[in-house]
Amino acid sequence: MTEATETTEATEAATPHDDSLHHDAAGAHDGPHGYASDKAGYLKRMRRIEGQVRGIARMIDEDEYCIDVLTQVSAVTKALQAVSLALVEDHLGHCVVDAAKASDADGAAKVREASEAIARLVRM
Amino acid sequence: MTEATETTEATEAATPHDDSLHHDAAGAHDGPHGYASDKAGYLKRMRRIEGQVRGIARMIDEDEYCIDVLTQVSAVTKALQAVSLALVEDHLGHCVVDAAKASDADGAAKVREASEAIARLVRM
Amino acid sequence: MTEATETTEATEAATPHDDSLHHDAAGAHDGPHGYASDKAGYLKRMRRIEGQVRGIARMIDEDEYCIDVLTQVSAVTKALQAVSLALVEDHLGHCVVDAAKASDADGAAKVREASEAIARLVRM
Amino acid sequence: MTEATETTEATEAATPHDDSLHHDAAGAHDGPHGYASDKAGYLKRMRRIEGQVRGIARMIDEDEYCIDVLTQVSAVTKALQAVSLALVEDHLGHCVVDAAKASDADGAAKVREASEAIARLVRM
Repeated sequence: MTEATETTEATEAATPHDDSLHHDAAGAHDGPHGYASDKAGYLKRMRRIEGQVRGIARMIDEDEYCIDVLTQVSAVTKALQAVSLALVEDHLGHCVVDAAKASDADGAAKVREASEAIARLVRM
Repeated sequence: MTEATETTEATEAATPHDDSLHHDAAGAHDGPHGYASDKAGYLKRMRRIEGQVRGIARMIDEDEYCIDVLTQVSAVTKALQAVSLALVEDHLGHCVVDAAKASDADGAAKVREASEAIARLVRM
Repeated sequence: MTEATETTEATEAATPHDDSLHHDAAGAHDGPHGYASDKAGYLKRMRRIEGQVRGIARMIDEDEYCIDVLTQVSAVTKALQAVSLALVEDHLGHCVVDAAKASDADGAAKVREASEAIARLVRM
Repeated sequence: MTEATETTEATEAATPHDDSLHHDAAGAHDGPHGYASDKAGYLKRMRRIEGQVRGIARMIDEDEYCIDVLTQVSAVTKALQAVSLALVEDHLGHCVVDAAKASDADGAAKVREASEAIARLVRM
């Protein structure tokens, strides 16, 4: 129950995107998403990260030392950034490359969209 | 079951620290940890982040668009960094300030330790 | 004199890359580099950043307050990251897109190389 | 000429700070700034960074490969972040510790100010 609510909030917090953009481009190549080839790997990484986040809450609940909590938060942040970088590479290698082959306009739109996502990653 | 295992892994993944350092310093001021005054607030933030992480796994499982997954991973990374910055401020304002008042050596040790934690935050 | 030496050091500090990779790919499309269309704009930004760096040295030399120096260092770091993001976008939109159109192997090699550069940007 | 203009711009670009804050605190301990003990070291690092920035402009002017320019921009960004981290440590170890010993109010004000500077560093 709580879980469902939290997840909804999380999804709502996401920056909205232009649906027409990727639907069109998806239509252009009819292929799966960039991460599809390693979906199980990504799910495993996310479950591990979820466990780490829960571990941090436990550390706080048990009054562990601030610096140890901080070290663990940095470790999780790093793990999330590694997931982001893997998603970017998969996206460039599939969606962007496919769009570039489909048409110049599709390629340009995908490059623009990917660049904005990379900027969000860097400008955290 | 799975949860407990994951949490243990998460804790083991933490960089070990020199126990003597903060125990001594803690002894010097006998105070609570820096985040103690807002423990409930930190726990709430971590639970929300846990829900967001679970939401990302669901997005991947339901084959949502790469860029939308990426946007959500960036949002969670940002939320974790906000927690880190709050922990740093609480740590400086309590543990470091108390150590500085206790003795020059305690203050210097705490500043060193805090600086290393800040570097881990920046050099992600 | 000093300038020349410093510049040489700077260039040597760069991570070496596999020359055959981009020469081949360059040969595949015979086009200019990604940033060529706005070379003057990039040069102007770098000259401005050089002036800011010199300004920071002056602030230190004149014993200005640490936090003010820090604020200025953060501003320059941000300006450099903006240049990096612009270079990434230009590179994706020209070199990577051209390689993707030339052949699957060229596209894959360019995506790999670009992803590594993005990782260096994020993992600072 | 150009140099002077650029430097002025750079200085103006800095986020203004509350002068009363650090002047009061400085008055409280009458000591030098945090980085004073290694002013020559900081000046040397800034001069080296200036040379690296000039080297990047030269790379762009000579049409070097995008990825090589990016690698060099990342190297300079990293060097600037290392300077920032050193400034933070020196600031905590001198200005913040001195303020903490002077009075609770001075300590709290310095911790607040340092935390904001650290946030600018992390949230780049």
